[in-house]
Amino acid sequence: MKWCRFEAETGPSYGVVGDDGSVSAVAGSPFGPHEVESGSSRPLSGVKLLVPVIPPTFYAAGVNYRLHVTEMAAKNGAEPVFPPAADIGYRANNALIADGEAIVIPSDASESVQYEGELVAVMGRRCKQVSEAEALEAVFGYTIGNDVSERNWQQHDRTFWRGKNTDTFKPMGPWIVTGLDPEELSVTIRLNGQEMFTYAVKDAIFGLAHFISRMSRYLTLYPGDVIWMGTDGATENMKHGDVVEVEIPGIGVLRNPVVREGEGDRRLSVVGSQHPG
Amino acid sequence: MKWCRFEAETGPSYGVVGDDGSVSAVAGSPFGPHEVESGSSRPLSGVKLLVPVIPPTFYAAGVNYRLHVTEMAAKNGAEPVFPPAADIGYRANNALIADGEAIVIPSDASESVQYEGELVAVMGRRCKQVSEAEALEAVFGYTIGNDVSERNWQQHDRTFWRGKNTDTFKPMGPWIVTGLDPEELSVTIRLNGQEMFTYAVKDAIFGLAHFISRMSRYLTLYPGDVIWMGTDGATENMKHGDVVEVEIPGIGVLRNPVVREGEGDRRLSVVGSQHPG
Repeated sequence: MKWCRFEAETGPSYGVVGDDGSVSAVAGSPFGPHEVESGSSRPLSGVKLLVPVIPPTFYAAGVNYRLHVTEMAAKNGAEPVFPPAADIGYRANNALIADGEAIVIPSDASESVQYEGELVAVMGRRCKQVSEAEALEAVFGYTIGNDVSERNWQQHDRTFWRGKNTDTFKPMGPWIVTGLDPEELSVTIRLNGQEMFTYAVKDAIFGLAHFISRMSRYLTLYPGDVIWMGTDGATENMKHGDVVEVEIPGIGVLRNPVVREGEGDRRLSVVGSQHPG
Repeated sequence: MKWCRFEAETGPSYGVVGDDGSVSAVAGSPFGPHEVESGSSRPLSGVKLLVPVIPPTFYAAGVNYRLHVTEMAAKNGAEPVFPPAADIGYRANNALIADGEAIVIPSDASESVQYEGELVAVMGRRCKQVSEAEALEAVFGYTIGNDVSERNWQQHDRTFWRGKNTDTFKPMGPWIVTGLDPEELSVTIRLNGQEMFTYAVKDAIFGLAHFISRMSRYLTLYPGDVIWMGTDGATENMKHGDVVEVEIPGIGVLRNPVVREGEGDRRLSVVGSQHPG
């Protein structure tokens, strides 16, 4: 099943995407009581998609694939350091944008603004102290994220605030798909139509079930919480006018244009964060 | 004006606390259209207070007072490092608890679980790129936070996930007070009734107006976002059976008992996170 959020006549609404390319509005939320609204079907091509969920807490594995660790270390002239444990990190809701919206690079950012295409798990149940064997049962479904990063700020600021969480730096979508096995998925990143990298989700240093089980020893996970699983491989710079795509077969394609603040068509740069719409 | 959230007959409700010690329910939210419900007044002593706001994004200054930096460095046998810039950090909503609820220390935590009493600013308006001169106009009001920290995990984990964000490690409340000048406030921390430390909010390395202005260069702040301003001075361990209080005259007292998982009266340890009530 494909769940989306979109701009309906009355404001943001959850919706179900049908195999025929239609969207039907849903009263309620996928995480609680809900009902498809009869007569609300419309063509997907005619709706404005929103970020598919606004998470209560926005988790991110960060460093979770070996080739990404070695490539980043080589670029920084450092020795690669693999994480010794599944210590989850955080991102911020202000940075979320939907499929199709523009990644806006601040005018004072360096040239080193890079994509990181990754799988996103969306929690479906409140859970605490779940075993690895039971962990995936608490997942509602999966979507796609692009963990856009300004590498200079990421390396030199005391926190990831603007390096990772500048407005528009967290594209997520286009929708959430249920019933998938994350270990069978692969992620492909394209820049301006050219394939940059493809990797298998299962090659993660720590898998999703392990993260959920370890997190839930100390933390309660809530419906709608998202866990971004990290990216693999080298990542490259994006510049004004580029288009970046992250594809996960079985889910879809997350596609976002890139603009730099103050360059070119200034109208583009006003397409900003839609949170907490 | 004093705004609270409490458990009403129909579920969580915002409320207004009167000078006479009463609470009146409010339909709507302090950040949007709202109306005091007539006939809903009840004694404050009879209501269950909730976390006064569930933030869209939970910001924390972290290291922001000089004596705290030097004391922490001395304990770790390191040279003090003052932050060179107002780089904001993050905490997580799962960890929020209300005034009166128990801080629950996991059974495998070290003895070094410590309080950090601090001022919390609650944003009232969506804002981007605000000047320092205008920044405080975007603040709705102020409350109190206790940034409970397990120092061993804080120092050795790759992120602050369990060191700072274990369930119940973020007491916040008891309510939000409007119309205050943060530079005139002081914070007192008491453990089992004994005063441990008092400091002036204005002695911060970076003030609230500077943080908001700098953050808003890159980030959009939203109504309900909270900014925890950091603590000053040494911090001490808390153990099972302790009671910790953070007082800010003009706001009130945030008071929480401390229990260690698996010790003593086990009924206490089930008082957990109430988010996202």
